[in-house]
Amino acid sequence: MDRFDFINSEKIKKQIEFIITIDEMKNVLRRNLVADASRRENDAEHSWHLAVMAMILEEYSADKVDISKVMKIALVHDLVEVYAGDTFAYDVKGNEDKLDREIMAAEKLFGMLKDGQGDEIRALWDEFEAKETAESKYANAIDRLQPLILNYLTNGHTWKLGDVHAPQIYKRMDIIRTATPELWHIVEGIISTSIETGLLKP
Amino acid sequence: MDRFDFINSEKIKKQIEFIITIDEMKNVLRRNLVADASRRENDAEHSWHLAVMAMILEEYSADKVDISKVMKIALVHDLVEVYAGDTFAYDVKGNEDKLDREIMAAEKLFGMLKDGQGDEIRALWDEFEAKETAESKYANAIDRLQPLILNYLTNGHTWKLGDVHAPQIYKRMDIIRTATPELWHIVEGIISTSIETGLLKP
Repeated sequence: MDRFDFINSEKIKKQIEFIITIDEMKNVLRRNLVADASRRENDAEHSWHLAVMAMILEEYSADKVDISKVMKIALVHDLVEVYAGDTFAYDVKGNEDKLDREIMAAEKLFGMLKDGQGDEIRALWDEFEAKETAESKYANAIDRLQPLILNYLTNGHTWKLGDVHAPQIYKRMDIIRTATPELWHIVEGIISTSIETGLLKP
Repeated sequence: MDRFDFINSEKIKKQIEFIITIDEMKNVLRRNLVADASRRENDAEHSWHLAVMAMILEEYSADKVDISKVMKIALVHDLVEVYAGDTFAYDVKGNEDKLDREIMAAEKLFGMLKDGQGDEIRALWDEFEAKETAESKYANAIDRLQPLILNYLTNGHTWKLGDVHAPQIYKRMDIIRTATPELWHIVEGIISTSIETGLLKP
């Protein structure tokens, strides 16, 4: 941050440093592709898409949500991957130490921000992970739906990568059934159509 | 949308179509690079970064803002570029018909959403463009600061592309001076340092 020595407040300097550090989200690649299948999606793109989807689909949340908090959760829910990397949902081994890696990353990253601001973002991330509040359940449901739609549009790309069968997807998508019940038939439609067309193993 | 014929509501089908259409934001390239200079930034990444910055820097808005509305504005402010493309800030000719192209794009894109939802997003975009409300001024200020920081980190990449001189940047950044006065010294610091190091013409 030497190049920003002209910043006249330690607090602002740390905030700018944080903002520059999280630019790395644009380089953290997920397993799924973008809709036109041209390349893998990155975390920044995913977080943006998730936040917009949360705006658009709010009416389908089973419980009334504070949409401001949902958008904040969507925007920050993957930030720890700047240091911890993306862990493939269907990678059993990678998921064993995922939480430990991410907690260390959270402490390093959110620790940059002072005056309670880091704690606030940490709390949003913890809330997302705990899946207990209405906002967290809704955000988690949309976080499942977003890659499901992209996988469907890209011929089941990550299902093939992970040798995934339909019951695993049903299990992973289950929060959509409870948090956004009116959208559950989309999950069923995608899975059954994909089995019929041979994109997905039953 | 034939592949989504299983969706049981016209409204939801249109919302999913909208969500899939805006995936194209991930392919609309801006002129500036990402922080590590490896490639051009796209609109989805920029919108995400802008929304997070708006969260982090809220305390510096001259006027109190509804942060929920600011985040919504940040998330949707460039959506019209899905159809209209990105127009380089320092391209005089491209900017002559920019508004016409973008209004046509807005009608096509936001027209997909029914029951007032398209109108709501259109209103957020209009508000951003008008720069009249506290939320719009703040969002516009951060929308200027974000690429300024990236340009500074990438050796003045777009300044060189556009053969830009310091007074043009001061003019373009002016809304930072009024909407987020405590951040204005960052603009001054970046510009004066860049002139000193030869990245920017005076």
